[in-house]
Amino acid sequence: MLQPVLTAAELNSYICEVYPQIMEQYPGYKVARVDPGRVEIQMVTDERHIRAGGTVSGPTLFSIADMGGYACVLSHVGRQALAVTTNLNINFMRKADPGILCADCTILKLGKRLLVFDCTITANESDEVIAHATGTYAIPPAR
Amino acid sequence: MLQPVLTAAELNSYICEVYPQIMEQYPGYKVARVDPGRVEIQMVTDERHIRAGGTVSGPTLFSIADMGGYACVLSHVGRQALAVTTNLNINFMRKADPGILCADCTILKLGKRLLVFDCTITANESDEVIAHATGTYAIPPAR
Amino acid sequence: MLQPVLTAAELNSYICEVYPQIMEQYPGYKVARVDPGRVEIQMVTDERHIRAGGTVSGPTLFSIADMGGYACVLSHVGRQALAVTTNLNINFMRKADPGILCADCTILKLGKRLLVFDCTITANESDEVIAHATGTYAIPPAR
Amino acid sequence: MLQPVLTAAELNSYICEVYPQIMEQYPGYKVARVDPGRVEIQMVTDERHIRAGGTVSGPTLFSIADMGGYACVLSHVGRQALAVTTNLNINFMRKADPGILCADCTILKLGKRLLVFDCTITANESDEVIAHATGTYAIPPAR
Repeated sequence: MLQPVLTAAELNSYICEVYPQIMEQYPGYKVARVDPGRVEIQMVTDERHIRAGGTVSGPTLFSIADMGGYACVLSHVGRQALAVTTNLNINFMRKADPGILCADCTILKLGKRLLVFDCTITANESDEVIAHATGTYAIPPAR
Repeated sequence: MLQPVLTAAELNSYICEVYPQIMEQYPGYKVARVDPGRVEIQMVTDERHIRAGGTVSGPTLFSIADMGGYACVLSHVGRQALAVTTNLNINFMRKADPGILCADCTILKLGKRLLVFDCTITANESDEVIAHATGTYAIPPAR
Repeated sequence: MLQPVLTAAELNSYICEVYPQIMEQYPGYKVARVDPGRVEIQMVTDERHIRAGGTVSGPTLFSIADMGGYACVLSHVGRQALAVTTNLNINFMRKADPGILCADCTILKLGKRLLVFDCTITANESDEVIAHATGTYAIPPAR
Repeated sequence: MLQPVLTAAELNSYICEVYPQIMEQYPGYKVARVDPGRVEIQMVTDERHIRAGGTVSGPTLFSIADMGGYACVLSHVGRQALAVTTNLNINFMRKADPGILCADCTILKLGKRLLVFDCTITANESDEVIAHATGTYAIPPAR
């Protein structure tokens, strides 16, 4: 079965090391939880992350889904900074006011070369789904 | 057949009005060309738009695809700032160095309620495809 | 909250009426369960549904996902035979031997014009995910 | 640059050998053309391929897109019967009457392990796009 190899604290520290821009772009970003086959990400959105109409923008929602997949890889495969997204499909379902975004990500398949995940995004402690994504990461071959 | 209702200059001016953050986040952003059923977008990427490994990030590529779809709607439907993405699927195919990104977008369907487009992203004047996206925008009902 | 308007038995009878080919193409097809926001579909696969390599084919897995979305619409909106798929994204994760396919479908959003669902496909009573799909159905306007 | 390694005639003969069911399920199926980076597929649809409403069904359109991707792999990589679809995203845009379906497929990326393609489906010699798909095939490692 799936078993994490890094804790949430180890993940947060590793992500800030390999991707130091993250805290400027996404203040309050953190991996909130790591469980077997599952990772939860949070970030805080403000006026930089909104679009016409005053709601959280598509690129912001894409970003948290993409970072959720990245955290799935790192937490379950190890410190593979160069893992890259090969495909991401996202459905936008409701508008969200700026505040706290939460992405609940599940690993659907962890192969030798690919990890497939899905991700459900909610906001501001409501249960309503803001967006839902499915994506694939390519895992660099072991050296 | 499809016929634009706004020129590239009108589009650029409208987008800056309804989405004033755009030039801070994406310097050099512009609609470069509008043709029947087709729109071309450009932006300049710098160190803010890269990911681990030094190449242009997934969220940046998503953004240009999404803005390309938005420009498809505005150019062919009119000043509909509140059109929203409902689905976007993106495949990442090659790495791109920071520089100039170009998104060539084609309208696949323009219905009363939905516009479907595809988008081929290239970089730095190479023909190689960096990423390819297909997406759907919901068009607000006419008042 | 989401509430079904048809039972599994009513759904099965309606689907056979509007789509009589279904039992020839997909023997053993049935809606096994309807719950609030959720539908479970089953079908039996045989040598007609396999591809090179002897495993269940992609089109067969697409079909059960698509029929799962259709059952989501019919069960929660009513007898709308002319609802149509507008988008479906599917990831194929493991091979499946012919036998019983099961699709567990969840409604992510039920709007006036669109229903978004996801679908997890398993086979032969194993928990392993064979394929995972996300899709959108357009709901015909009420007359 | 991309260069085919099999002709259309070689492809048709190979596909019938490894997937003998194809002509029963999809009468008139053939690879009509192979060009560098591009493949064109045709098939004939009849009452077996329609859905409620009398138009060509989603699974039929999925099938021709999927077979188009398969033909992209076989034509440009060689006789790799066990290549498998890992992801396929399809947008359904217009209804099609039964008759001749045509899928025009372009290779977006041919890597060592993955081939990404897109596919535009038209029907009955009209230029209108019925459906558009983007997909990924995994290529078995060379022995």
